[in-house]
Amino acid sequence: MANDIPSPAVPVNYMMKNDAFSQWMGLEVDKVERGYCLVSLRVRGDMLNGFYILHGGIAFALADSAMAFAANTYGQLAVVTDAHIQFPASAKEGDVLIAEARESARTRKTGYYEVTIKKRGGEEVLAKYQGSVYISSRRNPPE
Amino acid sequence: MANDIPSPAVPVNYMMKNDAFSQWMGLEVDKVERGYCLVSLRVRGDMLNGFYILHGGIAFALADSAMAFAANTYGQLAVVTDAHIQFPASAKEGDVLIAEARESARTRKTGYYEVTIKKRGGEEVLAKYQGSVYISSRRNPPE
Amino acid sequence: MANDIPSPAVPVNYMMKNDAFSQWMGLEVDKVERGYCLVSLRVRGDMLNGFYILHGGIAFALADSAMAFAANTYGQLAVVTDAHIQFPASAKEGDVLIAEARESARTRKTGYYEVTIKKRGGEEVLAKYQGSVYISSRRNPPE
Amino acid sequence: MANDIPSPAVPVNYMMKNDAFSQWMGLEVDKVERGYCLVSLRVRGDMLNGFYILHGGIAFALADSAMAFAANTYGQLAVVTDAHIQFPASAKEGDVLIAEARESARTRKTGYYEVTIKKRGGEEVLAKYQGSVYISSRRNPPE
Repeated sequence: MANDIPSPAVPVNYMMKNDAFSQWMGLEVDKVERGYCLVSLRVRGDMLNGFYILHGGIAFALADSAMAFAANTYGQLAVVTDAHIQFPASAKEGDVLIAEARESARTRKTGYYEVTIKKRGGEEVLAKYQGSVYISSRRNPPE
Repeated sequence: MANDIPSPAVPVNYMMKNDAFSQWMGLEVDKVERGYCLVSLRVRGDMLNGFYILHGGIAFALADSAMAFAANTYGQLAVVTDAHIQFPASAKEGDVLIAEARESARTRKTGYYEVTIKKRGGEEVLAKYQGSVYISSRRNPPE
Repeated sequence: MANDIPSPAVPVNYMMKNDAFSQWMGLEVDKVERGYCLVSLRVRGDMLNGFYILHGGIAFALADSAMAFAANTYGQLAVVTDAHIQFPASAKEGDVLIAEARESARTRKTGYYEVTIKKRGGEEVLAKYQGSVYISSRRNPPE
Repeated sequence: MANDIPSPAVPVNYMMKNDAFSQWMGLEVDKVERGYCLVSLRVRGDMLNGFYILHGGIAFALADSAMAFAANTYGQLAVVTDAHIQFPASAKEGDVLIAEARESARTRKTGYYEVTIKKRGGEEVLAKYQGSVYISSRRNPPE
């Protein structure tokens, strides 16, 4: 074939289709570009912690999925090695959250991403995430 | 009262009792000491990602809960501000994971913790987590 | 006085004046606004590591100073508790580096910042830094 | 040759010999094993920040060097991709600091390390560092 890099949405759709936990979260993929992904979810009661606010693990999972999708848009399997997250604010039941992943840099074998979580339509930053991936030599989706 | 610091298990039980997401995960609190907590869970099919391995968000949530419990054992409300996680290896359906949170240091207003995730009975490190908390002036449980 | 918040440059100048290591690095403060700081330095031979590229500690110090300055622009003493840095690329002797610190969020007692390091005039990201501060009740400069 | 993995000290000595910044810091390598390194330095006046305490960049550089040495003990070039550091306490002029780097895990292409900084002879944790490396296919020292 003339071009062996698939459309950015192809690996993301492949990953989402079988991603049981993202499906449990009700995660929706709103936009995909090369090195970029925007996802969203609505906070449910079963996502809260003992203080009745969003469990940090769900906020992390949302950011982590956004980054994993963005990093895999090149059609080459990328796996998360490191992630850092800051939690300036939290969310409560019924909030709709968006997570936007952008590529900071990408080398042959490593990729670096930033994700910002806000409420849809809001400006306040709920979480800031920085993550890194190792880019393997395998294709995604597998051939 | 002579002593106003509750037993370390009191704030942890209070947090766990209402923690809907930790209950969904089937998280169990196996051991609590001042500044220390050991928790575990069994990986289920609905915790996997699109590669059929444990979603990073669940591993993070397990470590994050372990740290939040350890940091709250002093009876003062501690909230997570920052967390970093490394993922050397993953887990699959049926694995039983343990997360052990230890205190690195604690000042009047900040606390620093490390969490290691392994399979029960195994030596391989699946994830290493470093987290920080801000210690508020509120009591936990609230008075 | 009607307004007890000093100009953003006042605490930064106070910090820089006595900052022996930033002076050793030849760090220059190029721009200061509330919650924002832009600094620069020229890479010298004594800042390199054993591979003849910039030592990660200097890149970190540059980002860390930029954030500490940005976080102290409110005239209240802010101390760094956590920092995460990614190193997609390095620098060599003679390069002029700029580090730009922006505020992601700020609560009463905590602040969250992001710093990007590039070569002056370049677009490539050499390092991405995310840092958090604890905001004490002391003034900066001290009264 | 029967065995092509050099002694763990060989790559460390090679890196230290030409490391101008570690030499400026007066860094000493006290112990090297496969996946492990212990280093130390004495805090000088030109390492302090504007609050007359150790600049965070020096603490980071100390931890970063310890990890880079530990990660390179296998004779294969390892480069730092990510690092997270927590600063529970600081140091002042004249303090002798030790940084101990231990391997958490190592795969074919990635390595994960933890570094603890204390004062020599003390128990208080001054800094906790978690770092990750990408393991290249090049030898260290180069052939």
